Amino acid sequence: MLTSMPLIEYADASPEIRAVYDDIMATRGVDWINNFWKALANDPATLRRTWESIKQIMAPGALDPLTKELIYVAVSVTNNCDYCLHSHTASAVTKGMTDAMFGELMAVVALANGNNRLANGYAIEVDERFRTPLAR
Amino acid sequence: MLTSMPLIEYADASPEIRAVYDDIMATRGVDWINNFWKALANDPATLRRTWESIKQIMAPGALDPLTKELIYVAVSVTNNCDYCLHSHTASAVTKGMTDAMFGELMAVVALANGNNRLANGYAIEVDERFRTPLAR
Amino acid sequence: MLTSMPLIEYADASPEIRAVYDDIMATRGVDWINNFWKALANDPATLRRTWESIKQIMAPGALDPLTKELIYVAVSVTNNCDYCLHSHTASAVTKGMTDAMFGELMAVVALANGNNRLANGYAIEVDERFRTPLAR
Amino acid sequence: MLTSMPLIEYADASPEIRAVYDDIMATRGVDWINNFWKALANDPATLRRTWESIKQIMAPGALDPLTKELIYVAVSVTNNCDYCLHSHTASAVTKGMTDAMFGELMAVVALANGNNRLANGYAIEVDERFRTPLAR
Amino acid sequence: MLTSMPLIEYADASPEIRAVYDDIMATRGVDWINNFWKALANDPATLRRTWESIKQIMAPGALDPLTKELIYVAVSVTNNCDYCLHSHTASAVTKGMTDAMFGELMAVVALANGNNRLANGYAIEVDERFRTPLAR
Amino acid sequence: MLTSMPLIEYADASPEIRAVYDDIMATRGVDWINNFWKALANDPATLRRTWESIKQIMAPGALDPLTKELIYVAVSVTNNCDYCLHSHTASAVTKGMTDAMFGELMAVVALANGNNRLANGYAIEVDERFRTPLAR
Repeated sequence: MLTSMPLIEYADASPEIRAVYDDIMATRGVDWINNFWKALANDPATLRRTWESIKQIMAPGALDPLTKELIYVAVSVTNNCDYCLHSHTASAVTKGMTDAMFGELMAVVALANGNNRLANGYAIEVDERFRTPLAR
Repeated sequence: MLTSMPLIEYADASPEIRAVYDDIMATRGVDWINNFWKALANDPATLRRTWESIKQIMAPGALDPLTKELIYVAVSVTNNCDYCLHSHTASAVTKGMTDAMFGELMAVVALANGNNRLANGYAIEVDERFRTPLAR
Repeated sequence: MLTSMPLIEYADASPEIRAVYDDIMATRGVDWINNFWKALANDPATLRRTWESIKQIMAPGALDPLTKELIYVAVSVTNNCDYCLHSHTASAVTKGMTDAMFGELMAVVALANGNNRLANGYAIEVDERFRTPLAR
Repeated sequence: MLTSMPLIEYADASPEIRAVYDDIMATRGVDWINNFWKALANDPATLRRTWESIKQIMAPGALDPLTKELIYVAVSVTNNCDYCLHSHTASAVTKGMTDAMFGELMAVVALANGNNRLANGYAIEVDERFRTPLAR
Repeated sequence: MLTSMPLIEYADASPEIRAVYDDIMATRGVDWINNFWKALANDPATLRRTWESIKQIMAPGALDPLTKELIYVAVSVTNNCDYCLHSHTASAVTKGMTDAMFGELMAVVALANGNNRLANGYAIEVDERFRTPLAR
Repeated sequence: MLTSMPLIEYADASPEIRAVYDDIMATRGVDWINNFWKALANDPATLRRTWESIKQIMAPGALDPLTKELIYVAVSVTNNCDYCLHSHTASAVTKGMTDAMFGELMAVVALANGNNRLANGYAIEVDERFRTPLAR
């Protein structure tokens, strides 16, 4: 870790930062803040914007919260983001992900990453019918 | 496209390739083969192995087929695989993806790709509680 | 293409650029320049440095030129660089790549891209014996 | 590591998992199992499918086993998969990779990763002759 | 393009979408909307959130707007996002990027992409002094 | 770390390697060598070529050295190269990067990584005016 970019604890936080921390804990129903937010707090504008975005995007909508966490983990595994893998796997478990679901999630992620390269390498043209309105 | 690596049509396919094509059409309940398989048919071993894998992995299990397609699209968008985006978006629509679901899928994918880099760039250590058995 | 960043043809090139073009053609035993170099010629320092690097690195050494082209294609497919895929697949064919080799190359690239994500997602620790001197 | 996703040792494995472990050891002529397989064993279907794929793809064919390992390492380095880098570098050494070969492998991988971005950034069009059948 | 995900023109836009379009044009001092926003308008929540983020982040601050565009282009080239490359290269030109700056930008991007892989492949440990407070 | 690929200290280096080390220290005005170079020294040709490239590319030009470091960090964060992040963040600090600049750099990098995927996923066509000469 860049030791000059410290994790900012609640006790040391400005009122502006505490307001975000309070909203995170209230929204999630927890009494602690994970390191992601303590690091972003070094830049309060990024802390607030990132929290507002995640709060809005990960809320229940056309997709349920567990499905959203699975998608988030799929991206994080593809990009090899260790922090995000751990934090969002934990979130997914909280929202109901079983070991069997995790296994299938990993299988799909590996399959897609492999097949993406087969499509790249064989330079395959998109089928016309995948481009037409009737396809969606 | 690499013009010396032709798409192999059913009429021109060997019995070995036709057997895979037949299984694809029967499994999916369609009467046509998309370009991905016609290109892989240049290497029958890869054609067969890739089909057997996708058939096994994308089947209903602990995760339903639509959720698997969403995960597949999330990976393909992250890797910028245009062919896979189009073919699996079409599959997702067939399995029930609405425009609202697509919009939320894209929003989660963009969010995760951005936040993965915040975690990388701030070099954030994984919280101890995300590593414990109780976290899952 | 960025139309204000034109491809610089031999006839329009400065002596500095022509010297690089001449060396490319002499080294490769061809009488034409591909678009990659004509684009880089907009920045002569990058043109020269990139050519000197590729000339040195892709020359026969502990690895033969065909193996080096296969490695180059593997990276380009992983990154989805369409230009590089086409130009280096063509080079690989010139150096002896058969269709069967191309098929196996794609199979290994897809496998590795998938398995990389399984290793990421399961967060697998490196075996101690892979870290010891005897392992290499 | 996700501590609730344990490494499954041979002594604790089901007959289904042991059958795969036995085949891995017999095929490779070793008496131990590396962590990759012990982690995948949490999902026996993925364990079996992944092993069958790697066994088929990495076997001698139009490309020799060492060349395949070099390609695998090239992909793993490009994707920054630390586990895969270590395990497949060890495999490559077993199959004859020298330090000089490793050095040239790394040089080609770095070159291609850089040049891929020059081609992207200058938005270079693929030369017509790279698209014709005669090019391959 | 997914033809069922149309570009939404100003004339066909809802008041909610028009409000964002109006702010984009006013902020940028232009009288047209580029395709990125017309596509995102299919999901008004994403349109608004994305615009608010980019408006906030790309504004003058500790870094000037041109430097921010150069950074944006560097990321887009690394990820091979063709749309983003073209739109943000155009923005950078508007803000003062010369051809010489573009050439150096590409050179740094290529260098970093290559050297990232040398650091990965040689599995180089971070120097202690890069981790100390004095280093920053 | 691959323990059989040792870091080569100045005291153990050949004259050829020492010449590069000396030039690194003289150019940078420091009295020590960081691990990147000590690892590359295992392949003297790569050591020399990489140093010559970085010395040429990162020198003041149309872009100032700090801007170049910011671009380098942006790429390294996008690729999740931990070594490069730490070494070039340290360099950027030496050249004047403040905490506020670092915060904005991270914000732009995250934004671009997210928006790259929105452009991919919505499969947005490049606006004609971004392709015309007048756009640059």
